[in-house]
Amino acid sequence: MENFKGWEDLHLVRTRIDHAIHRTPVLTSETLNKDAGAKLFFKCENFQKTGSFKARGAANFVFSLSQEEAAKGVATHSSGNHGAALARAAALRGITAHIIMPNNSPATKQETVRRYGGKLTLCDPTYEARKLACAKIIQETGATLAHSADDYRIIGGQGTTGLEFTEQVPDLDLILAPIGGGGMASGLVVAMKTLNLRTEVIAVEPEQADDAFQSWKTGVLQPPEPNTVADGLRTGLAEQPFRILQAGASEIVTVSEAAIVAAMQRIWKVLKIVVEPSAAVPYAAILEGKITVQNRRIGVVLTGGNLDLTKLPWVTQLV
Amino acid sequence: MENFKGWEDLHLVRTRIDHAIHRTPVLTSETLNKDAGAKLFFKCENFQKTGSFKARGAANFVFSLSQEEAAKGVATHSSGNHGAALARAAALRGITAHIIMPNNSPATKQETVRRYGGKLTLCDPTYEARKLACAKIIQETGATLAHSADDYRIIGGQGTTGLEFTEQVPDLDLILAPIGGGGMASGLVVAMKTLNLRTEVIAVEPEQADDAFQSWKTGVLQPPEPNTVADGLRTGLAEQPFRILQAGASEIVTVSEAAIVAAMQRIWKVLKIVVEPSAAVPYAAILEGKITVQNRRIGVVLTGGNLDLTKLPWVTQLV
Repeated sequence: MENFKGWEDLHLVRTRIDHAIHRTPVLTSETLNKDAGAKLFFKCENFQKTGSFKARGAANFVFSLSQEEAAKGVATHSSGNHGAALARAAALRGITAHIIMPNNSPATKQETVRRYGGKLTLCDPTYEARKLACAKIIQETGATLAHSADDYRIIGGQGTTGLEFTEQVPDLDLILAPIGGGGMASGLVVAMKTLNLRTEVIAVEPEQADDAFQSWKTGVLQPPEPNTVADGLRTGLAEQPFRILQAGASEIVTVSEAAIVAAMQRIWKVLKIVVEPSAAVPYAAILEGKITVQNRRIGVVLTGGNLDLTKLPWVTQLV
Repeated sequence: MENFKGWEDLHLVRTRIDHAIHRTPVLTSETLNKDAGAKLFFKCENFQKTGSFKARGAANFVFSLSQEEAAKGVATHSSGNHGAALARAAALRGITAHIIMPNNSPATKQETVRRYGGKLTLCDPTYEARKLACAKIIQETGATLAHSADDYRIIGGQGTTGLEFTEQVPDLDLILAPIGGGGMASGLVVAMKTLNLRTEVIAVEPEQADDAFQSWKTGVLQPPEPNTVADGLRTGLAEQPFRILQAGASEIVTVSEAAIVAAMQRIWKVLKIVVEPSAAVPYAAILEGKITVQNRRIGVVLTGGNLDLTKLPWVTQLV
């Protein structure tokens, strides 16, 4: 693990999923650069198929299965975006996707899973209930578990974001990503390490869902107790991503809820794009001064754009 | 006028303003295409400098002035986006822009004018009050009036949107744009006619601000009585755009307020971009079935993305 040998070449991963995903654009803003005193590059995975980067990992997972495995379908428990992405990837291959979601997931995320043809099962909004419901379905159907982060195929798929990003913007000093299960953050580490790039990776987490930060600090995986507006990050850091981050990430930093909401609103207002709360978490770290950005070239992964437009956090929560 | 001879070559206009504007992207969506049964191409002027297409006309106006004219500054009355755009263009040339705005303009549009260094004067929210306040300032300063639509330099600048759009997406059957003062819609007509393209131009207007539609129907310019959520269209159709539309537009159609709000929300949700209500007006015509779209290649100009994010119409008006 330490030297990232044995990892699947991300160029091969990209070839496998190329037909199933978008090469998303990178946006810049003079206004935001001036505010930060840095050069910021925003990788718009909110424009990705299914509205989040999860389309990458899910596609890599589904198209890596043998015919025999595929025939029995796939299953996952997901706070939303991974479920939708897996449903879509499965539909592309013509196989069944069993999606277990907490019953407090945004309605829009549930609709999306159904629209892509996923078989949706709602459960209590605890991590244990999710795992249990998923295990039961796997036992009944023989479906393959597609964990949202704890799988090298998922991590490799998300890692193609880093590959693409560095092709679009060479010589980044730093890439920032939010961290929930850790699939994206660890995928970026794998990308930078296997591409032999000097680019640092920093994961950013809500203070009120800081199990990754606590795990990083203590060296032992800590259980999650999420209570954050960033619904996409209401999940625990997974084992494999944790080990990858320990071996290759620079830092994990945390941000306040107020900063997340302010960052989200600023991105909407200046970049004129719709991002979900989780996607605003890295830029919140810049706004709160949690990262040294001065005169650096900084990549920010905007991870998704799925949310209930009638429940904007600066309207329902702060006003 | 009838044959559009004598119009300034829009390629020359583009050369004049090239340093001052963005070449904005064109977005597409499988979901929206499927809904419409057509191929839709969205030209994202919400990503334009100052957040709207008005940056084009304003830049062309300011950079067309003689040194002598420029020294005395420019002035305009504007519902918002044109004012911001003129302020910025003037700042680029280092001259003064006097901006008169109705006192009920969105706060965000007022802030923007100030941020770009415009000298802002608020007046009563009537068309007469705006004209009067503007005339007074022009008398005092000798500034040149930059009308938001009734000027061939403004129309030509907006027309570069059409030039760019047809380069990005060849062989469009139809281009749709919202109509307020008429600068964009007439600019598109000029573009299609001077480029000798077969592409039709249809202007779309809120039913509750339908002076352009009434003018078109009666052949005589009608006074505006706007009462619409589309704040950017709360202005009267101007004389020169009206004549150009009479000579070269295919149609003017109107849409309901509910359709505008639904169209705006749909664009945000599916395209993941922020557009203001006015920008959603053309897509509202597709949603309401006001235009024959089946199997056609249709360009939709998303005119801007400036609005108060705390006052979304589907939250404050309909719920």
